Amino acid sequence: MRLVENTIETLAPLIKSKELSPVELVKDCLERINETEPALNAYITVLEDQAMLAAYKAEKEIMNGQYRGHLHGIPYSAKDLFTTKGVLTSAGSKVLSDYVPDEDAAVIEKLTEAGAVLVGKTNLHEFAYGGTNENEYYGPARNYWNTEMIPGGSSGGSGTSVAASSSIFSLGTDTGGSIRMPASLCGVVGIKATYGRVSRRGVLPLSSSLDHAGPLAKSTWDVAAVLSVIAGEDKKDLTSSKLDVPDYIETLNQGDEGLKGLTIGICERYYFENIDPEVEQAVRASIPVFEALGAHIIEVDIPSLSEVTQLQGVITSAEAYSYHAKHLAERAEDYGSNIRGRLLMGHFTPAWAYVQAQRLRKEYQKQWSEIYKNMDILLAPTTAITAFPIHAETITLGGKVVNPRDLGVLGRTSPSNFNGFPALSVPCGFNRQGLPIGLQLQGRPFEEAILLKAAYAYEQAQTFVKTTAS
Amino acid sequence: MRLVENTIETLAPLIKSKELSPVELVKDCLERINETEPALNAYITVLEDQAMLAAYKAEKEIMNGQYRGHLHGIPYSAKDLFTTKGVLTSAGSKVLSDYVPDEDAAVIEKLTEAGAVLVGKTNLHEFAYGGTNENEYYGPARNYWNTEMIPGGSSGGSGTSVAASSSIFSLGTDTGGSIRMPASLCGVVGIKATYGRVSRRGVLPLSSSLDHAGPLAKSTWDVAAVLSVIAGEDKKDLTSSKLDVPDYIETLNQGDEGLKGLTIGICERYYFENIDPEVEQAVRASIPVFEALGAHIIEVDIPSLSEVTQLQGVITSAEAYSYHAKHLAERAEDYGSNIRGRLLMGHFTPAWAYVQAQRLRKEYQKQWSEIYKNMDILLAPTTAITAFPIHAETITLGGKVVNPRDLGVLGRTSPSNFNGFPALSVPCGFNRQGLPIGLQLQGRPFEEAILLKAAYAYEQAQTFVKTTAS
Repeated sequence: MRLVENTIETLAPLIKSKELSPVELVKDCLERINETEPALNAYITVLEDQAMLAAYKAEKEIMNGQYRGHLHGIPYSAKDLFTTKGVLTSAGSKVLSDYVPDEDAAVIEKLTEAGAVLVGKTNLHEFAYGGTNENEYYGPARNYWNTEMIPGGSSGGSGTSVAASSSIFSLGTDTGGSIRMPASLCGVVGIKATYGRVSRRGVLPLSSSLDHAGPLAKSTWDVAAVLSVIAGEDKKDLTSSKLDVPDYIETLNQGDEGLKGLTIGICERYYFENIDPEVEQAVRASIPVFEALGAHIIEVDIPSLSEVTQLQGVITSAEAYSYHAKHLAERAEDYGSNIRGRLLMGHFTPAWAYVQAQRLRKEYQKQWSEIYKNMDILLAPTTAITAFPIHAETITLGGKVVNPRDLGVLGRTSPSNFNGFPALSVPCGFNRQGLPIGLQLQGRPFEEAILLKAAYAYEQAQTFVKTTAS
Repeated sequence: MRLVENTIETLAPLIKSKELSPVELVKDCLERINETEPALNAYITVLEDQAMLAAYKAEKEIMNGQYRGHLHGIPYSAKDLFTTKGVLTSAGSKVLSDYVPDEDAAVIEKLTEAGAVLVGKTNLHEFAYGGTNENEYYGPARNYWNTEMIPGGSSGGSGTSVAASSSIFSLGTDTGGSIRMPASLCGVVGIKATYGRVSRRGVLPLSSSLDHAGPLAKSTWDVAAVLSVIAGEDKKDLTSSKLDVPDYIETLNQGDEGLKGLTIGICERYYFENIDPEVEQAVRASIPVFEALGAHIIEVDIPSLSEVTQLQGVITSAEAYSYHAKHLAERAEDYGSNIRGRLLMGHFTPAWAYVQAQRLRKEYQKQWSEIYKNMDILLAPTTAITAFPIHAETITLGGKVVNPRDLGVLGRTSPSNFNGFPALSVPCGFNRQGLPIGLQLQGRPFEEAILLKAAYAYEQAQTFVKTTAS
């Protein structure tokens, strides 16, 4: 097992105790990138020199006794939607293929401050507007478990890079599921915290009222460590929450009684409708594991879920067009055909429909808050299917031939963007083809700690067999 | 001088001490309505029986020693946009001319609880979408100071009714100035508190993100008394603020040093551009009065003001259409031609423009918060002109012939809706025709008390001659 295949949980103590040098670790990561990139296309930019300089700096600090915490010396990647000072920030688009920002995004600043080492910028669905990462300009990112398959998106480069250990963790963004879907399809953990919990300053927007930033990593412990660093108030982000952020690592092990006292809800509607039987089986198999850990399982019904995907589409098309209007007018031909079509639809979205969608959104948030009074966590599949072949025009689902890119076929993730509540995806199995399946845990606003604690306990207790990538 | 011509400040102690019966006062108010209505058309509905019953109830309570506070037994009116249980709530439109709600608006509930007596529902610009109260279905409300003139709008019936003493105070709503403009043109005081300060539950919406509810009355003391009752958290209104509400009456006289320590800003741009010279003179004449009271005067410039009226128009058209879409589809012919035209424009407002307007709004709110760090109050005219003749197609302003209904001609009020900061209008003089002129004081979020204290001190100190209505 090479260095970079380990978790932060394993590596951080070794770095702290000076048994492992960040220079060694970052070198291993850069080598791993070189090995895997031809097959994966996970990266748009690799920052060898910058990363090595940062690694030497970290080594020196640690040698001088200035250890900054769990992320010090840990190599990571960031979706190419996070602005990076002096480094191309393409958003996966020809439109921004020469855009070099003057400043780092807020979360990049925080990670630099924590001593983490940025090794590169990852591939994504163009401007984050899609769930497959079939990028027309930089080429598709490919799934580590089977490179014929999509890694999911839009943070597909992040997901496959973490799966392949070509970075130890990665920053993604999530507007309709873009952290959780690639986490699910690539067999890693990804968390979208509550809206406002993680600063979006310097993250190129897709749909500002739905956009979230967050980490993908190999384990729940690892995403908890990253979230502890990147969460918290940002006075320069108008949507940032002032609430205090707990140390999520500490809360993972709080209490001695497993998940006793925790109520987990299961909603058949929407989440378990039109899904792949193998996905369904793997997700349902997690329920007795949670019960054995002490959780109480209840059935819930959330009627408004059926409308969310459509309402969210109205909001995203309007907000995305608003951001892209200028570029679309000046250089529409530089957009990929797929994304250009979707964006131009936004030109014709009427404001009254947007206003009605936002109004319903507030009402549903209120309804959901009531429903969450009776449960701590909503357990569901993250995606209804596993990864499908890149550029496949159809797949078979429940005996029907469907276009896997149609609204609502792939993700079961958008309700958590619509209500802004926190949600994570954690691996819960593999299908017969050896493709990963993700379990989604959704919770109450600003209660990320409960989700992390439950996912962490589940990781220790689950018994599914991890395959290795072919 | 008849009973109903007095202020709450004068009447409340007499009611409390049982020297004056609410029955006597409410009777006087109802008589005054009968006298003045033929000329003013201030009311859509007068509630004689209901008001007399409430007056007897108040009398009985007070006789039994259960005095509820300043508003107990005080007759008031409410714009016909506030829902009232069992009482027509027309919104000034044929569309709702048979709408009898099952519930009272939150502020009506609070006033009932405080013992105030609702005497009727006042005329308004249809659905509150206009500044003149030239109502095509219920007929125009007329200005008490000259019944050929508009009372301003949209809360025109409220403004003229308070001026005429056919109610002692009135509830209005303010989306672009609809409390402050009629207050200015009718020579009364009106306040729009901070967005979220006063519940809008049960107030029919014009443009939800800009709508405010608030009082009009004869004096600052009186609006302070009403605001103290109607402000405060409403858990059933999603936009309601949780912040505590001070007793505004107590804060009027706080401190012994007049307005010492207060900084008042004057912004020439927008506020003093394209205004009637008599209005300008009266407003500027207030400056030395504030200086004599100890305030420090500074000049400020707020560049973004120039765009506010247009951006606000985009927001209002989208939100208004969103609310009216169903009625417009089913019975467009029941809308007045003026309002129907304005509403239908909202069908074509694109969502991206709405999103951009809301985004700029947040940026401007931030800029303005910075500017307000250097001043406590922004002093300006409320309206750029005085009342003009009902149905006049043009007026002369600064030597030019203009349509007084064109965007930006009448009001200087919309910035306080755009930023949601509190603002009030207090009389500051009369023109040579004997028409009132209003002075506007705008302040920082949730600092209504400073505005009220300044307006109250100004009222005591000002020396302009009050004329009587012709």
